[in-house]
Amino acid sequence: MTNPAIIDCDPGHDDALALLLAVADPRLDLLGVTTVAGNQTLDKTTANAQKILALAGASDIPVAAGCERPLVGDLTVADDIHGESGLDGPDLDGPVAGTVGVHAVELMRRLVAGSPEPVTLIATGPLTNVALFLRLHTEAARNVRRVVFMGGSTERGNTTPYGEFNIVTDPEAADIVLRSGLPLTMIGLNVTHRALATTRVINEFRGLDTRVGTVCAELMTFFADAYRRNFGFEHPPVHDPVAVACVLDPSVVRTVAAPVVVELGGTYTRGATVADLHHRSGRPDNCEVAVALDVDAFWRLLIGAVHDLGIPRPLVTSEDR
Amino acid sequence: MTNPAIIDCDPGHDDALALLLAVADPRLDLLGVTTVAGNQTLDKTTANAQKILALAGASDIPVAAGCERPLVGDLTVADDIHGESGLDGPDLDGPVAGTVGVHAVELMRRLVAGSPEPVTLIATGPLTNVALFLRLHTEAARNVRRVVFMGGSTERGNTTPYGEFNIVTDPEAADIVLRSGLPLTMIGLNVTHRALATTRVINEFRGLDTRVGTVCAELMTFFADAYRRNFGFEHPPVHDPVAVACVLDPSVVRTVAAPVVVELGGTYTRGATVADLHHRSGRPDNCEVAVALDVDAFWRLLIGAVHDLGIPRPLVTSEDR
Amino acid sequence: MTNPAIIDCDPGHDDALALLLAVADPRLDLLGVTTVAGNQTLDKTTANAQKILALAGASDIPVAAGCERPLVGDLTVADDIHGESGLDGPDLDGPVAGTVGVHAVELMRRLVAGSPEPVTLIATGPLTNVALFLRLHTEAARNVRRVVFMGGSTERGNTTPYGEFNIVTDPEAADIVLRSGLPLTMIGLNVTHRALATTRVINEFRGLDTRVGTVCAELMTFFADAYRRNFGFEHPPVHDPVAVACVLDPSVVRTVAAPVVVELGGTYTRGATVADLHHRSGRPDNCEVAVALDVDAFWRLLIGAVHDLGIPRPLVTSEDR
Amino acid sequence: MTNPAIIDCDPGHDDALALLLAVADPRLDLLGVTTVAGNQTLDKTTANAQKILALAGASDIPVAAGCERPLVGDLTVADDIHGESGLDGPDLDGPVAGTVGVHAVELMRRLVAGSPEPVTLIATGPLTNVALFLRLHTEAARNVRRVVFMGGSTERGNTTPYGEFNIVTDPEAADIVLRSGLPLTMIGLNVTHRALATTRVINEFRGLDTRVGTVCAELMTFFADAYRRNFGFEHPPVHDPVAVACVLDPSVVRTVAAPVVVELGGTYTRGATVADLHHRSGRPDNCEVAVALDVDAFWRLLIGAVHDLGIPRPLVTSEDR
Repeated sequence: MTNPAIIDCDPGHDDALALLLAVADPRLDLLGVTTVAGNQTLDKTTANAQKILALAGASDIPVAAGCERPLVGDLTVADDIHGESGLDGPDLDGPVAGTVGVHAVELMRRLVAGSPEPVTLIATGPLTNVALFLRLHTEAARNVRRVVFMGGSTERGNTTPYGEFNIVTDPEAADIVLRSGLPLTMIGLNVTHRALATTRVINEFRGLDTRVGTVCAELMTFFADAYRRNFGFEHPPVHDPVAVACVLDPSVVRTVAAPVVVELGGTYTRGATVADLHHRSGRPDNCEVAVALDVDAFWRLLIGAVHDLGIPRPLVTSEDR
Repeated sequence: MTNPAIIDCDPGHDDALALLLAVADPRLDLLGVTTVAGNQTLDKTTANAQKILALAGASDIPVAAGCERPLVGDLTVADDIHGESGLDGPDLDGPVAGTVGVHAVELMRRLVAGSPEPVTLIATGPLTNVALFLRLHTEAARNVRRVVFMGGSTERGNTTPYGEFNIVTDPEAADIVLRSGLPLTMIGLNVTHRALATTRVINEFRGLDTRVGTVCAELMTFFADAYRRNFGFEHPPVHDPVAVACVLDPSVVRTVAAPVVVELGGTYTRGATVADLHHRSGRPDNCEVAVALDVDAFWRLLIGAVHDLGIPRPLVTSEDR
Repeated sequence: MTNPAIIDCDPGHDDALALLLAVADPRLDLLGVTTVAGNQTLDKTTANAQKILALAGASDIPVAAGCERPLVGDLTVADDIHGESGLDGPDLDGPVAGTVGVHAVELMRRLVAGSPEPVTLIATGPLTNVALFLRLHTEAARNVRRVVFMGGSTERGNTTPYGEFNIVTDPEAADIVLRSGLPLTMIGLNVTHRALATTRVINEFRGLDTRVGTVCAELMTFFADAYRRNFGFEHPPVHDPVAVACVLDPSVVRTVAAPVVVELGGTYTRGATVADLHHRSGRPDNCEVAVALDVDAFWRLLIGAVHDLGIPRPLVTSEDR
Repeated sequence: MTNPAIIDCDPGHDDALALLLAVADPRLDLLGVTTVAGNQTLDKTTANAQKILALAGASDIPVAAGCERPLVGDLTVADDIHGESGLDGPDLDGPVAGTVGVHAVELMRRLVAGSPEPVTLIATGPLTNVALFLRLHTEAARNVRRVVFMGGSTERGNTTPYGEFNIVTDPEAADIVLRSGLPLTMIGLNVTHRALATTRVINEFRGLDTRVGTVCAELMTFFADAYRRNFGFEHPPVHDPVAVACVLDPSVVRTVAAPVVVELGGTYTRGATVADLHHRSGRPDNCEVAVALDVDAFWRLLIGAVHDLGIPRPLVTSEDR
């Protein structure tokens, strides 16, 4: 049995690792990659996705660019965290494959509607593309197995005291996803802040002595600097791969079912994910919320994947999809 | 020179008259009709659009169904005003043409992108489809000449004290349109509440002694009852045709440039259009706001159009488009 | 039977006329005057109240200064409308009586609690003092007959498109008053914008050939300039005396019972009074809302009062109270 | 040097312990106790304060009842946590002293204005009284040394996912206090959830073998049940005494200066305290925010105080104040 998935992302250092993990691990069938504005502008996140796929020898995976701004409000990129290119650190120049000539939302529609198996959507950026897909293609959306998104928090945020970057960037999109009725898994800062790229982790990447491993080490070195400077963190949290990891191996995170809503109003709290873990609001459960991370298992998975990408990947023909 | 236009609507009694006016008047080249949930559910507004086009002998105009709910929040239909079918009153049964097999937003893209002349979007329902078109198809949107929408008010609302139905139904969509940077014309309740279907008007429709004229009289008779019951109005306001009329003949309304924003928050005012007519906010003008209606000219235009529809319409081949 | 009342105000050109009307008309027993920050800072509105009472020969009426800022948010004075002093135009220098040594809220408590007859509170500024009185002195508040306030609108506002100055300045205070359960009368812009100090009115004030008449003419001349400059009005609306007038003679305004709430949230509509005149919200009536003004009767009352102030006022001893 | 303080509270089990601590510890000069509606209605919280003072042999300390509801919105008591009486568990019947005949806000004014030393306000309930004191008595408020309040959180809330009970009950009052410019210390759930009344603690109270110790044990036993039932906590957090403890001995908590604002809008987050610990908002620091608790030192202090109350308290004459 295959496990078809689409990654919607805005690379981004941690999105890059999420892509590498998804490409490398044979338990996932990565049908396509769609990009969204977030950590950087759409042109940059799209170029970055293409570069990472090229790095992973996976340029055959179709890429489509999506929304260049959130539904409501303006885009504020996270260049303080991800640099001018959105993927500062390593040199990733080199030939990349072009994008397919359709919008990300249209690629999602085609891949989801065309899949014999229900498809998992893994979102590691603002949920703009996913939300528009759900609003526009209600028929195709029935073939979504679930949406796993990195975003939000059950505790504190990062962009604002209670707001996490992906959700704060497009709260209305998050609202659409959270009210969609689809099976949802939220991978919030409360768990991803446990997934720290320590010096030991960075050394392990470097010690793989492969092109991919070196790039990962360089990405994490830049990322560590940015997190130290902006938040005073000793080691940077590697958010996005946790979303992929929990699709590959559900035991990597522990989740609880809870009602989660996103604050659309508010002067200081717009974009906060409000997770009623104690079920005091009377709202119905709509989300599996990650509340614990098996840190060791996570890093074994991620470092193992990067290791495997050092080894030539067998060709997958479209018939296998 | 042609004046290509698309009508996005949710018929709806007054939408029906807007469609008839747009079909009848040779100054407008109606490229297509897209439908949205609003006055009634999407299936009903779509069927109603098809019925009105059939009534007008214009079943060659492509129709596409669009969004079945607003971006954020649930749909509350206006069955208190438009009845169970969305077009209660006349018997409109009979053969209709099918819809084209694509989403309204995709039909908009094709028609706008394919038009040699910039296209006017006339929206007489919630702005969900228009907003998604603008967010998804930024390239095609450059060929929009302007958006004329019936919605909002500079004074009181109807659904809530300061909220008009179309905007209250999808405030985020209105926000997207109002911030789009496109030339905009807002036809609000402050002018449409002057366009009253008086007994004289209804008698004129009936006196045309045509199938279309009789349907218009029956639609307005039902509408008059609904407005009397719900709002205590002596005569019902015929909102949507004013938007079409001002495209046909700009002198029908007087407009002023003003900053208009839509309230997305608020406990009691969500969906209010906030038009700063005195320019005290410092916000930039983004909209031509209708502030006066030439009532006589409006009715001459509309009754004349309905009159013309009693006469067989010359065939328009797709090449003429 | 007496009709005891307290005026809470922030003079202010139109507050000044309201005070003169209240002092002059024998149908009202003006127990005291309390001041609040609004049109200008508290020190200025208090000084202005004292000056107007001195002008009217009514320095025996106790004055107490109240809150120097709204409950929530900062004070923004209306110096564009009322000038640097809050009462620019005439020369009002001269001896005034001191204030009583207690806070406005405490003077309200004493006067209301001490009155054998229920007391009418007439508020012509932000409702800060009245709200604090209601929250602090629930026992004394039972002896309030009703609250008549100039503020809000059923239509457009002045400070913002849907917000009137007094309510926008302290929306939470307005909320407290509107939810108090007391009999309320709202005199909003929808009626006060009919009470225009035309050239004829100003000439009548001047033609009285009394000190008070001349001051009124000078006040209105300054006011006319300010309204022309800020709003393009041909003649300035004289808001506050309408509130006093409707206490003196209820037939001056027509009111309807309606549910009125104030918007506390909202990005653009904070402070809007949301009056559900069509009873579509299901909220209970809590306010008599003025919807029409007998313009001629109003001016007869006001000009007559100013006329009477040209004649020495009989002494009122405290025993008569 | 004395350390004069007033406790404004809504007892409540943990308020009761806060009062006992304040009465017992000679480092604090408790000038008065004011009560507010919160955990229970005002009549009950006032009666409870009197009972606790009587229990502590401190009925000479003046008590004044304050606001019976929050500034804006309705009161929702916490009877799920504190029971029908607000202090369910022990039998506290017996003679109590009457309240002074003035409102809490007036008692605050008198005590603060009359104190030769600046006075610390310790608030362990909704901040209604404190806010009204600050708004009404700006002159007296200059003699406030600082406000230490139990309320809010830097992390999750209890009444709502991001809202703590005291602040959610009266967010506008919290806003007034947070913007007052006074030195502030916030003791939030992030530290009070470390102050758990474990079985060992309860046994220590009981083991004191005094009336006060037994009452504390009974209070905590009831409280433990309530927290287990409502939140699944193994042991109940004893919030309010932490605020008193940090006045007695600042080393009990570690604080950091930060900008703290309270969310007044929001659909799901009203009442959230938004503490920008990473200084990313650009807002100025306005509060010392407790971020760590010396749990052992706290319990030593509290249990020691309860122990001391078993020993007759020396009479304090009003001259010593």
